[in-house]
Amino acid sequence: MEHLKISCAQRVIFECITLQDSESVDLAMSLGRVLSENIFANRDLPPYDVSAMDGFAVRSADLFNLPATLVIIEDIKAGDMSTLTVGRGQCARIMTGAPMPRGADAVIRVEDTREISHDTVQITIAVKACHDVRPQGENMREGDVVLTKGTEITPGVIGVLATVKAAKFSVYRRPRVAILSTGNELEAIGDPVNPNKIPDSNTYALMAQVQALGITPAMLGIARDDPAELEQFLKIGLEYDVLLVSGGTSVGVHDYVRPTIEGLGVEMKFWRVAIKPGHPLAFGKTDKTFVFGLPGNPVSSMVCFEEFVAPALRRMMGNTKQYRRTVTARLAHAVKMRPGRTEFVRVQLSADDAGYIASSTGTQSSGVLLSMARADGLLVLPSACSGFEAGAQVTVQLLDGTVFQECPGFKE
Amino acid sequence: MEHLKISCAQRVIFECITLQDSESVDLAMSLGRVLSENIFANRDLPPYDVSAMDGFAVRSADLFNLPATLVIIEDIKAGDMSTLTVGRGQCARIMTGAPMPRGADAVIRVEDTREISHDTVQITIAVKACHDVRPQGENMREGDVVLTKGTEITPGVIGVLATVKAAKFSVYRRPRVAILSTGNELEAIGDPVNPNKIPDSNTYALMAQVQALGITPAMLGIARDDPAELEQFLKIGLEYDVLLVSGGTSVGVHDYVRPTIEGLGVEMKFWRVAIKPGHPLAFGKTDKTFVFGLPGNPVSSMVCFEEFVAPALRRMMGNTKQYRRTVTARLAHAVKMRPGRTEFVRVQLSADDAGYIASSTGTQSSGVLLSMARADGLLVLPSACSGFEAGAQVTVQLLDGTVFQECPGFKE
Repeated sequence: MEHLKISCAQRVIFECITLQDSESVDLAMSLGRVLSENIFANRDLPPYDVSAMDGFAVRSADLFNLPATLVIIEDIKAGDMSTLTVGRGQCARIMTGAPMPRGADAVIRVEDTREISHDTVQITIAVKACHDVRPQGENMREGDVVLTKGTEITPGVIGVLATVKAAKFSVYRRPRVAILSTGNELEAIGDPVNPNKIPDSNTYALMAQVQALGITPAMLGIARDDPAELEQFLKIGLEYDVLLVSGGTSVGVHDYVRPTIEGLGVEMKFWRVAIKPGHPLAFGKTDKTFVFGLPGNPVSSMVCFEEFVAPALRRMMGNTKQYRRTVTARLAHAVKMRPGRTEFVRVQLSADDAGYIASSTGTQSSGVLLSMARADGLLVLPSACSGFEAGAQVTVQLLDGTVFQECPGFKE
Repeated sequence: MEHLKISCAQRVIFECITLQDSESVDLAMSLGRVLSENIFANRDLPPYDVSAMDGFAVRSADLFNLPATLVIIEDIKAGDMSTLTVGRGQCARIMTGAPMPRGADAVIRVEDTREISHDTVQITIAVKACHDVRPQGENMREGDVVLTKGTEITPGVIGVLATVKAAKFSVYRRPRVAILSTGNELEAIGDPVNPNKIPDSNTYALMAQVQALGITPAMLGIARDDPAELEQFLKIGLEYDVLLVSGGTSVGVHDYVRPTIEGLGVEMKFWRVAIKPGHPLAFGKTDKTFVFGLPGNPVSSMVCFEEFVAPALRRMMGNTKQYRRTVTARLAHAVKMRPGRTEFVRVQLSADDAGYIASSTGTQSSGVLLSMARADGLLVLPSACSGFEAGAQVTVQLLDGTVFQECPGFKE
């Protein structure tokens, strides 16, 4: 059976998936969403030339001979409009953000002055015109597009949206995601401990991976190894935008997932990818649902989610940065592998003056979820190589957070 | 007036703040929280030796002469218990995760076999004992501490919590955070546009920065430059665990914040830090509230939040990684600065084969919030330097996500 390269599998997925519809969202609920409309400036900002500092608005020409003693004719606060014109030998006390008075062309910050009396100040430095003045429209000009469709809403973007008073705007809808685990061996979290069963961790690890993208998934539970029960669960799952099925897609003879899923009209695009851990990875679609078949092994399931599902969900939500950010690190120890599949090794990162150092979290068995819990990142071993020596420069995908980038950033 | 070094200010803050109390949380709501108790394994996992592959459970000694033809005596699914003993020349069909039958000591994956009839299989490779067998307790042993107090709850950790069936557990409480903007010049988001006013972006940018840490803040609104009104707002704010006040802490004569805040019994620890943008940064405390005075300039406010408030809030919630992750990048162009304060330059990151390249987002005026909206990170210019040449190796704090690390990772 053919094993697709990771990049091929990603391309197949990206060719299938579609951008979500738009919906309106309140500013206070918009963090992490993606704009589906351009946002325009509703004013010039600053609306006029303003001071960039707390200090004195002066005529720069008055500072030719130092120290210069100037008469303070006015106090201008932010939010005030000045009424007087600063003449030769005069200045105005001014606060950060306050409008420049007529006549003045520069600001001297208070630290570079000495007040001689209530209405005279000594200036000890010379500056050029425009010094510490923020010109009208420096921040934005009315009618300008300040944020383009496709912008991910970070705290800085929220600041800009508040600046143009966008209290409500359009973003791409989040996909509705359902999670289904399969297998007789699984024990639900509420069941009593049975040593012959395996606790179902995939449902919750996948839940958290979906939550980390800002989506609250529906958890369908555990379908037993019975075609009728499985079909019933899959039918519910196919009501969602995206269905994640973990377990049941390997080549074992007791797997009913493949025939059942195809029987429900899911057009399967691939069943195998050259990735370790995690190669029994499947993807298909109906008219309205994208279906991912994830490996039953907990680590494999999580790695496949990060490499295939997360980028797909992020693309559906309009994100242009779909992949986990990669950094370069030095290997703390040699790593060996069997060539043929791109391998993802769970690593912890430390740092010294020369940069990051990656070291394995321990056993890389795909059943040992603790290695994933301890990992800061995934070290990527390209499929053609047979390992790296200690000290080699390697690529690590960061796992500890939600930092994404535009390209995968590693060689397969 | 003394300007504290950033690390000094951080130390003062860290000496004052206290870890939050614990509260109980449901597994499904726990992503991003920090455990305030140790979590123990409630069973051996795997509960017995299991197959790591779909294939055949064999006696490795039978594979001395290849190809070996073995009689299939049983099918073992995950969740089944085998009843037979694999004898010489025999094997069992076995699925990933299924218990190893007595007598067998290794697994041959299905890809390395050829089924000759329904009950005989030809094995084409030899393996050692234990090959593709996951031993009992490999993942965890009953009674082991699997997760320690202080662990941040990532998706991998959630998988482990589900594995030990921790449906509810103790985490550090999130602090209650209030946000107050100050200044006559500010226009609330619901107000009509007034060219003499400045839209209040700080309230919303700070809101989003707090939300990014998993905390829903209370937004108190805008206090005008009137001591009585300010006092009223501050009194409300001092009912919270943390109060963020933006604006009003600079040295301008019209600032009432300092006397009003001290009049309410807030013990101020510092008012100035050697940071740009953002040096009017204050910190103080009462019996129950930590108060941050943030600069009124939008970019300054956001940068000070990232450098001081976010680490403090994360430490209060029990996070051991408090600082934004740093990467090394090459400068795309020269950067100049005036020595004396540690400077944070908003940059975009691109990458080539040699690593990250940092380039300025444009004007670095602290009034231009768009530069923050466009930034992937903050380039750190140590206070002693006067700039860097194009091509220099520099340190960049990543902004685009919630990736944190244990140490600041840069030289001041």
